[in-house]
Amino acid sequence: MGLLEQINSPDDLKKLSVKELYVFADEVRSYIMETVRRRGGHLASNLGTVELITALHYVFDCPADKLLFDVGHQAYTHKIITGRRDAFYFLRSDAGVSGFPNVSESVYDAFTTGHSSTSLSLGVGFSRARDILGLDYNVVCVIGDGAFTGGMAFEALNDIGANKEKMIIVLNDNKMSISKNVGALNEYLAKLRLSKRYLNVKYNVKKAVSALPFFGNRVVNFLDRTKDNIKKTLLPDKIFENLGVKYYGPFDGHNIAELVSILKKLKDKNGPVLLHVLTNKGNGVPEILHNPDKYHGVTPENKPETEISFASVVGKKLCRLAEQHQNLVAVTAAMSMGTGLDEFAVKFPDRYFDVGIAEEHAACMCAGLAAAGVKPFFAVYSSFLQRAFDQTLHDICIDKRPVTLLIDHAGAVNGDGVTHQGIFDIGFLSLIPNMTVLQPKDGKELESMLDFAVDFNAPLAIRYPKSFSYEFDEHTPVNGLKWESLVRSREKIYILAAGNRMIKIALGVKNVNVINARVLKPLDKEFLSSVEDGSLVITLEDGVIRGGFGESVECFYNSADKSVKVVNLGYPDKFQARSLGSDMMLEAGITQENIAVIIAKFKNTRK
Amino acid sequence: MGLLEQINSPDDLKKLSVKELYVFADEVRSYIMETVRRRGGHLASNLGTVELITALHYVFDCPADKLLFDVGHQAYTHKIITGRRDAFYFLRSDAGVSGFPNVSESVYDAFTTGHSSTSLSLGVGFSRARDILGLDYNVVCVIGDGAFTGGMAFEALNDIGANKEKMIIVLNDNKMSISKNVGALNEYLAKLRLSKRYLNVKYNVKKAVSALPFFGNRVVNFLDRTKDNIKKTLLPDKIFENLGVKYYGPFDGHNIAELVSILKKLKDKNGPVLLHVLTNKGNGVPEILHNPDKYHGVTPENKPETEISFASVVGKKLCRLAEQHQNLVAVTAAMSMGTGLDEFAVKFPDRYFDVGIAEEHAACMCAGLAAAGVKPFFAVYSSFLQRAFDQTLHDICIDKRPVTLLIDHAGAVNGDGVTHQGIFDIGFLSLIPNMTVLQPKDGKELESMLDFAVDFNAPLAIRYPKSFSYEFDEHTPVNGLKWESLVRSREKIYILAAGNRMIKIALGVKNVNVINARVLKPLDKEFLSSVEDGSLVITLEDGVIRGGFGESVECFYNSADKSVKVVNLGYPDKFQARSLGSDMMLEAGITQENIAVIIAKFKNTRK
Repeated sequence: MGLLEQINSPDDLKKLSVKELYVFADEVRSYIMETVRRRGGHLASNLGTVELITALHYVFDCPADKLLFDVGHQAYTHKIITGRRDAFYFLRSDAGVSGFPNVSESVYDAFTTGHSSTSLSLGVGFSRARDILGLDYNVVCVIGDGAFTGGMAFEALNDIGANKEKMIIVLNDNKMSISKNVGALNEYLAKLRLSKRYLNVKYNVKKAVSALPFFGNRVVNFLDRTKDNIKKTLLPDKIFENLGVKYYGPFDGHNIAELVSILKKLKDKNGPVLLHVLTNKGNGVPEILHNPDKYHGVTPENKPETEISFASVVGKKLCRLAEQHQNLVAVTAAMSMGTGLDEFAVKFPDRYFDVGIAEEHAACMCAGLAAAGVKPFFAVYSSFLQRAFDQTLHDICIDKRPVTLLIDHAGAVNGDGVTHQGIFDIGFLSLIPNMTVLQPKDGKELESMLDFAVDFNAPLAIRYPKSFSYEFDEHTPVNGLKWESLVRSREKIYILAAGNRMIKIALGVKNVNVINARVLKPLDKEFLSSVEDGSLVITLEDGVIRGGFGESVECFYNSADKSVKVVNLGYPDKFQARSLGSDMMLEAGITQENIAVIIAKFKNTRK
Repeated sequence: MGLLEQINSPDDLKKLSVKELYVFADEVRSYIMETVRRRGGHLASNLGTVELITALHYVFDCPADKLLFDVGHQAYTHKIITGRRDAFYFLRSDAGVSGFPNVSESVYDAFTTGHSSTSLSLGVGFSRARDILGLDYNVVCVIGDGAFTGGMAFEALNDIGANKEKMIIVLNDNKMSISKNVGALNEYLAKLRLSKRYLNVKYNVKKAVSALPFFGNRVVNFLDRTKDNIKKTLLPDKIFENLGVKYYGPFDGHNIAELVSILKKLKDKNGPVLLHVLTNKGNGVPEILHNPDKYHGVTPENKPETEISFASVVGKKLCRLAEQHQNLVAVTAAMSMGTGLDEFAVKFPDRYFDVGIAEEHAACMCAGLAAAGVKPFFAVYSSFLQRAFDQTLHDICIDKRPVTLLIDHAGAVNGDGVTHQGIFDIGFLSLIPNMTVLQPKDGKELESMLDFAVDFNAPLAIRYPKSFSYEFDEHTPVNGLKWESLVRSREKIYILAAGNRMIKIALGVKNVNVINARVLKPLDKEFLSSVEDGSLVITLEDGVIRGGFGESVECFYNSADKSVKVVNLGYPDKFQARSLGSDMMLEAGITQENIAVIIAKFKNTRK
């Protein structure tokens, strides 16, 4: 029996010696490897934080102390230590554990997270509340160098540095966000990293010297003082100290003994401190260590890829369009791979902009690009676009800037859980004036929408889930923003379905008209008006009903005083914690069976 | 005839000597003073930028060169120089000029702005587009030290510093955002400012020496070199240079000659440069200089205050509640005065947090505060809350954190124009699960809603416009989230009105039931169900119809298969450029006359 099986809580961990922690960490690493290979999940980042999280739980007392993981995709070790070792076997499933911290899962998860750059704001919130309530616990934020480029982290730092609440910020510097990290802060951190090399030399000298009899300790003390002085001289000017946060580092994030020792010291500091630790994504596994972005998100082994990724369609098509249109540019917020832009990045480096985890800046910059005559395509996940709501409204839409938002992971999302569901974008985009929202039925239609986008002189959003399974034979161009009739029937029953998986369901229903409602805003009013009085219209959308496409169809008929019965299918007004999109659809009644029931009920009332 | 009357474009300005620019600047200052006293507007900030903007237009060639004003409330001098001198007489009206840069107003306005911290993102967009298109113009961003605390500015800086596009960032450091500036960056800038004192001494020595015959010039050159060296040593470590942006400053922002000289030099620099200028809000007018926040936004003189500000109600009530509830805290993003929190700030400094212009951080921090057991009230303008959409959804609502959003300037806004309309919040808040949205009919009801908020253990938004004119005699508590019947009639006609000005209109309609629809989400389904079949329900809301309250009423009846006719009144799906809310309402048909027409039409069809 290994150490792993003995650890059911942080208290168990504290019974181990520091030496044993290394053994434990290796067992955790193997367990994570094995689990992610089987279940999919975030691999490289979690292999990089095994030692750091082990050291944190060894030193701090959770759940009294608050551990706040930024984004939270790197917290697997935390889950394993805090009583979820066995549940972790079923990672990313409703039966096991989710892939992110979640308060409904464990008291050790101080907050439910999934989006980037929130930990410092949450941390200062916890710290202030603690002081106001006269309590006494530690607040530790674990934030990657990638998440640090998000503006909110800076807003928090600006607040923390001026107000000096006691808290510990652990900057987990792995030189990566999801893809290779970008930006000036990253270059600055690189300078800090360089100094580590110098410190390593010192450390080895110190170790050698301290072994000497008689003078050893005195020499070590002298070296300690010198180290501090030289460090001050050698290190580049410190942004963090200029902002009022005491800086410690850089330290080796895989050296548990060193981490335990420094964390114990920092625990007693008053005011905010930043501990800079260097880790390697994929530490301990050479293949992953050298290809960390390939192993950021991993799909389960042996799972056949039956679906085609929309991102791959976007990637190829944008490259072709960029050859024809010299003013076409592509923008990503640290998601080049996830959104399919890696080929574009290589082929058109001068027209490709990865701005780091900074969706607000990305959207606003696109507005500037468009105002100055180029044609920007911003590829972004639906749930992360929520960050740029104001920029979409204020900077893109007021002046009708021809920016195209390519919204990936729209609709129900598998595996990533409640924070990553892309089910709100139809609503929050449709309420913005001047915005047009499209959703393709398959890859070919997405391509034709991209053709359309190039010439479309206004804000445009094209939303699509990660992948699609069904390719249509026939396609009609989207020009004119008209819907497409897929199946005609004499029955006065119409299913308006948006997107591949909704259309697939509609196609399974007999004796109905099936319409590809590929334009979610503006409505195809000509079509809607052509529907006969006394008809049933069923809307199917991959998003929440509230404020969505179906409701706008409903209100159209109501305003038009047309006696058409409208039934909206989509997700109800609640957060979706399910691991599988198919379960979400089932629960929401987005099924052929339920549609049959709705139709039968309608026919009955009509009689 | 003064110089002011001779300047109809930047070209005219360029004909003046630098000495004449000082005269011109004084005339502009007087004209701004006189106009704002008469029309209202932003005073202190515009008095502070007269010389800076004059120098910018003297050196750069607009509209070819792009001047991007952050927020844009400080651009009056720019409007006066660029052919809008006479229109400026009617500041903040549809007949004259708006208070912010607006592309529909002038080719010299490179972008329509109003929200904070966008200029660097827009600027790098313009710069990149210029380089891609092989063009050659200058991009100049003018950003205040307040706007610099917005996270998006940092996101942009991180991008700019790494990629090195040629652009000029003018940091207009007036030591203020709207209220006194806060945060670590501000403290850092204060250190930079101190160095100015040293440079002034040097400058005077240099001036004296350069007047000497024979050796004068050589000594000056020597001093120049020395100045540079000493400057490097004396100045604190430079955050901006660490982030890859060359820093120049600080310079006196009221010394036109010096500004012209340095701007000419910076024009030829490649790569991004930051020019730090020190200005005084309210420069030239002692009374304003010493009370700049009092003169940030000014209401016209002689205009009787007939309305009561909701902010003053909030301010007083929160103070009373804070005395009873030791865990109540108030949060603002640089808007203590605008949102009524100044008294709270003085009385409860330990429970008051001004985080600077940083709505995202404010909302996320509130989520942390609430998670840790205190009760945060975040007071924020409706249009600025758009910035925190994701934080409201992801950090506040997923875990149902009991944060109360006090949404001021909700609905139609007078004077500030298209960027400041608070007409989207009903929609974007209502589509978020777990969110409750209230709107009081008057100040007393707002007070009772605040009482309710203290005990409400979930996310809550209370929206209200700047002020209200009508006080009700009777009030019923909002507990239970029920609507309130104000007028009963036997007619089967119901007006559901939200907020003071909508209710006032409804009360003027004869023979109808008037309901105070103070709970915008969730709907009072009990009431809605009690409405008889065959009734007419008219909804009145101070927001866009799309995704709003009225549509949800409409969809409720449709789902419930109740034959109730619903008519929604609110703003249509377009941006509102009007200066007066009353004009917006008129255009949107939110009038007693139009309601009478709707009722007559309904009665006719029913016959």
